[in-house]
Amino acid sequence: MLRPEDVIGILRERGEIWDTAPGLVGLRGPARELMERIALSLAGLAREETADEWNVPAGIDFSTLERAQYFASFPQWLTAASHLSDDQSVLEGIAGSDSPAAAARNAMDRPNAALSPAVCYHTYERLAGHRVTSPTLMTAESVCWRHEGNRLAPLERGWAFRMREIVCLGTAADVEGFRQRWIIRSSAFAESLGLTVEIVQANDPFFAPTARGKAALQRIKALKHELIVRFPDGRPLAIASFNNHEHFFGEAFGFSLESGEIAASGCVAFGIERWLLAVLAAHGVDHATTELGWRTNTPDTIGAGLR
Amino acid sequence: MLRPEDVIGILRERGEIWDTAPGLVGLRGPARELMERIALSLAGLAREETADEWNVPAGIDFSTLERAQYFASFPQWLTAASHLSDDQSVLEGIAGSDSPAAAARNAMDRPNAALSPAVCYHTYERLAGHRVTSPTLMTAESVCWRHEGNRLAPLERGWAFRMREIVCLGTAADVEGFRQRWIIRSSAFAESLGLTVEIVQANDPFFAPTARGKAALQRIKALKHELIVRFPDGRPLAIASFNNHEHFFGEAFGFSLESGEIAASGCVAFGIERWLLAVLAAHGVDHATTELGWRTNTPDTIGAGLR
Repeated sequence: MLRPEDVIGILRERGEIWDTAPGLVGLRGPARELMERIALSLAGLAREETADEWNVPAGIDFSTLERAQYFASFPQWLTAASHLSDDQSVLEGIAGSDSPAAAARNAMDRPNAALSPAVCYHTYERLAGHRVTSPTLMTAESVCWRHEGNRLAPLERGWAFRMREIVCLGTAADVEGFRQRWIIRSSAFAESLGLTVEIVQANDPFFAPTARGKAALQRIKALKHELIVRFPDGRPLAIASFNNHEHFFGEAFGFSLESGEIAASGCVAFGIERWLLAVLAAHGVDHATTELGWRTNTPDTIGAGLR
Repeated sequence: MLRPEDVIGILRERGEIWDTAPGLVGLRGPARELMERIALSLAGLAREETADEWNVPAGIDFSTLERAQYFASFPQWLTAASHLSDDQSVLEGIAGSDSPAAAARNAMDRPNAALSPAVCYHTYERLAGHRVTSPTLMTAESVCWRHEGNRLAPLERGWAFRMREIVCLGTAADVEGFRQRWIIRSSAFAESLGLTVEIVQANDPFFAPTARGKAALQRIKALKHELIVRFPDGRPLAIASFNNHEHFFGEAFGFSLESGEIAASGCVAFGIERWLLAVLAAHGVDHATTELGWRTNTPDTIGAGLR
């Protein structure tokens, strides 16, 4: 198992990874292709559970996050999409400025939408007020945004990152059965990629200095496990999480079972860049694709001009 | 050919499309699957030109856009990613607020990154200061953001939308040859999808009230054509554009040919949601997939609870 900084160092040197801002990375070459293969495999795995795949919108309404008690739970992560004022004189001032980037950064309107912090909020929003059969399942992959300040690290913790989720709504038993099934299925998939994994109990990093935050934390009582790999220094990297939110979102969004009872919900989430990092660290940057028996379409050499 | 509002009306009624904010739409069911098929076909078409596919970062540095004279050219579209202050007291104030969404919207920091307005800026940024062989080609699909105020319309003009681009750098002749080749190739692909298309000369919607904007417009002199379909009322929808930027970006970013001469550049861009809209309008919402000979994995019925 390589250290993550060694993996990133090799990829950087080859021009296969780069950043445009802290936490925003690009990929090309064999590493990119490997990530796409992993993403496709996870999509295939999700389809064994459900054919209902969504392309969720790139952003989400602030009111949906408020309803989910997101601001009491994880305000530190919130990222939003802002645009410039429609006011012609503001735009002219920026267009004519000698430092237009700085002028623009200072002239953003209040944001109209949040960037999705997770895929599953879209499911709760769409289901709000509806009755569902048990189990009701969906899956989606989407770019998610969580600002983690100076904890950001390439592939390991992105400001923007790709997440595959599978969401289950239904009876308490259906949701917990779904979660247990995915603990087993995800572990088997990780092992098929040559990863040595563990399942650990985990807690969401709730923001709890306020009474409201503590109350949300108490109420959500999420039963959470994570699938982790360990780097050589013993540090864990969570590559998937298995969450049972019980009736928290059913109550918040008013979705119920056909019996009229509030529905339970749970979700399974895979951080796709982290799977790439785990596979590269386990097999080495040069051999991951061949050891997995995957062929690559990408030319081995990346044009020097593009390094 | 259906009217776009009729296509959207049918999709909405079936629960296959929804919005979370103006210009931010989600898709599920057969329409989503059709869009993925179109996106895959465009990716395959791009690979006939180049094996160098990038996953570009989700955001881009303001300084890159400044270097590209974006603020003089299209400030009206600019969208950026902002996060909340790291200040614990600000976060506590939001977490404890009775209206946390409103409190958060009022407490965003200045943005640290712009959301990509187009894929090709990432290429210019990566190539800045480098020498390249002619032609140097890359392709990527990414979510792009352009705020178009009250012109936003589902699938037709999104605040966020998916764009497939192919970028070419090289000699003037290589770039213009690339552009001409893609005019033909894209038209043939559209016709293979049963679309009736035209090629028209077009202009970028430059923001030109300032002297700086006018100067940028003069200097860029982009040779631009678009591939359009027409709705029943004659209104055109551009589904691809073919752009020759001559030496504009080569000068701005200092990339040159092996001879030392400034490189020319051009790009071809496909708006994926617009291709979906064009195909649905041309074939009808019920028959598009079967008329194209594409099978669908998606169940015909979407659970009523998820409408």
